Amino acid sequence: MHFKISKKTFYQALDKVARAISASSPIPALSGIKIVIANNQIELTASDSDMSIFDIVKSDEDNQLVIYKEGSIVIEGKYILDIVRKIDSSTIEVEIADGYLTKISGGNTEFKINGVPTSDYPLIDFSKPQESFKISANDLQKMIVQTSFATTDRENRPILTGVNITVENKELTFAATDSNRLARKTQIIKCEDEINFIIPASSLLKIARIIDKNSEVEIAVSDKKVQFYFEDMIIQNRLIDGIFPDTNRFIPNAFQTIITLDSRDLLNAIDRASFIKSIDGVSIVNFQISENEFIVSSKSQEVGSSVEEIIKYEYEGEPIKISFSGKFLSEAIRAIEGSNIKISFEGEMKPFVVREVDDLNSTHLILPVRTNY
Amino acid sequence: MHFKISKKTFYQALDKVARAISASSPIPALSGIKIVIANNQIELTASDSDMSIFDIVKSDEDNQLVIYKEGSIVIEGKYILDIVRKIDSSTIEVEIADGYLTKISGGNTEFKINGVPTSDYPLIDFSKPQESFKISANDLQKMIVQTSFATTDRENRPILTGVNITVENKELTFAATDSNRLARKTQIIKCEDEINFIIPASSLLKIARIIDKNSEVEIAVSDKKVQFYFEDMIIQNRLIDGIFPDTNRFIPNAFQTIITLDSRDLLNAIDRASFIKSIDGVSIVNFQISENEFIVSSKSQEVGSSVEEIIKYEYEGEPIKISFSGKFLSEAIRAIEGSNIKISFEGEMKPFVVREVDDLNSTHLILPVRTNY
Repeated sequence: MHFKISKKTFYQALDKVARAISASSPIPALSGIKIVIANNQIELTASDSDMSIFDIVKSDEDNQLVIYKEGSIVIEGKYILDIVRKIDSSTIEVEIADGYLTKISGGNTEFKINGVPTSDYPLIDFSKPQESFKISANDLQKMIVQTSFATTDRENRPILTGVNITVENKELTFAATDSNRLARKTQIIKCEDEINFIIPASSLLKIARIIDKNSEVEIAVSDKKVQFYFEDMIIQNRLIDGIFPDTNRFIPNAFQTIITLDSRDLLNAIDRASFIKSIDGVSIVNFQISENEFIVSSKSQEVGSSVEEIIKYEYEGEPIKISFSGKFLSEAIRAIEGSNIKISFEGEMKPFVVREVDDLNSTHLILPVRTNY
Repeated sequence: MHFKISKKTFYQALDKVARAISASSPIPALSGIKIVIANNQIELTASDSDMSIFDIVKSDEDNQLVIYKEGSIVIEGKYILDIVRKIDSSTIEVEIADGYLTKISGGNTEFKINGVPTSDYPLIDFSKPQESFKISANDLQKMIVQTSFATTDRENRPILTGVNITVENKELTFAATDSNRLARKTQIIKCEDEINFIIPASSLLKIARIIDKNSEVEIAVSDKKVQFYFEDMIIQNRLIDGIFPDTNRFIPNAFQTIITLDSRDLLNAIDRASFIKSIDGVSIVNFQISENEFIVSSKSQEVGSSVEEIIKYEYEGEPIKISFSGKFLSEAIRAIEGSNIKISFEGEMKPFVVREVDDLNSTHLILPVRTNY
């Protein structure tokens, strides 16, 4: 194996695939990046056995790729990334020097790193499933970021660590819940298939960071795996087994009280009230809302109390008193991104709905909590 | 106790004194800030029993301080800082509401926080020792930052966790060593006293972050404690007992080989070579220097090897081969701050001297290590 390539191109490609590498991988070879030079291109593979990434670098004018000899090697991910970053030269040369010892050089600097033969690397099946749909990377990122925070990280209910992605009647839905709150975002897409799968939120968040805002992403899915195609890259992830609850039927339609207000005002008030935490670190925030007064308060035996008034708000319906997790509401408001928040209450001990005013595509549902004051 | 003050002034004062608070303080009251309103001023005290900070806020045009009632309270440091920061108002009002429950309010927000009586707070003696000298805050920061990194954090040799500060014949010296390297910085000051004490490097680094670059600092010292006076603040710290080695006599004066080169070039080369670490995480870097060639290399059984050539350097004396900790040399170069580095070698297994060219006030000494290749 022997090739030369632009440092920038090589580093960016290595950096993207390396995100699949986990520090605590069960298989030693998986701490490496598999580099294969064949078919006049570089093929990079990295995996933690849950997520696998495959990327191709083809020769073009920009990347100055020159292949002298085909071959393959696995190099420790953190070594090759660091070396390529540190070498002070616009091009990098990689050559298997002796056995698996790999020479990486550029400028006045030459590294020789112990590699591992690709025969030690697990075979990963990147074959493409049949069902698929397309979405812009920008929209995909939004759907991920605006839902995945509502999952739980408790391993005892695996399906709630994932985001449920469905396509039904051309409506794409991302839904996530930790059973005390729900985040749900929908979008109309071009797809005739009916699709329903659960993918770990942690994987989705990694994917959101890798994909380029301006590209289009094709998502292909089977019973076992999902693949994200964009540019010359495939990101593949295992699915979570199980049946996700039908989240649509949780969302109430008839409301007793509806308020609208500036999201920044509300976020700041929640943030201040959330400062009062109980001994287990939870902040319970209370709303007391009527036509004349909107009081945000909190109280804990250990720390003390807070009380403040929100001056500017619109109100319709009946007065209400309700207590809930301050963290849940502030995360919902942040996810919505809009400047005007509408909160719709079904009743004192019923879940309430948080939405951007006039936007029904993004819905956040929060369960209230009982307090003894 | 009841007063009103500008949020900005109050927050900055709290933030500065709070740096003395340790998360793991042996005395519960020491997690708080003591607030005393007396003599028409606010007196703030915080301490972790090693370091104590005392600050006075007097009424002036900017800070809008109005005192309604004298009194005192101790409030949990992280609570009061967070509350004052979060309140959305230019002025903050603080009032003991009921017993030790303290009301902190501003704008539409009101917090009530459980305080502790000042009788639970340890008495701290801030009386001023007799011997003292003055130095600009800017110079003090440099002396701290350019020496304290060379201390050790191993508790088994307490004096080596500290910086030795001496005044002798009007020369102020900061010296620190972990027994494998030495950092030493001197400056001429106006002081007739002979002074010699050891202060923990960790405390000095905290002080460097608190003091304002433009102020002057007076340092007063006794057998037991040292005080740093600047503006309306006193930072007081315990000393480390023991006799510090006379570091001046370690520094060689006759050299076999002297090189000078660009500090950035050397730093980058050391950084690349330091990438090759042995299994215990140490990077041993080798120099091989002659009139015609300057090779920087490194090698480890586990990872591999690196080799690079430095092209631009000046050289006088005899050829030399020497191995040393890459971390020590790069920390010394960074501490020196200059763009031209002069390294003077006494011999292959002798400590070498790192200095900015033509600057004898800042000296770094590094012990070489034996390698078996």
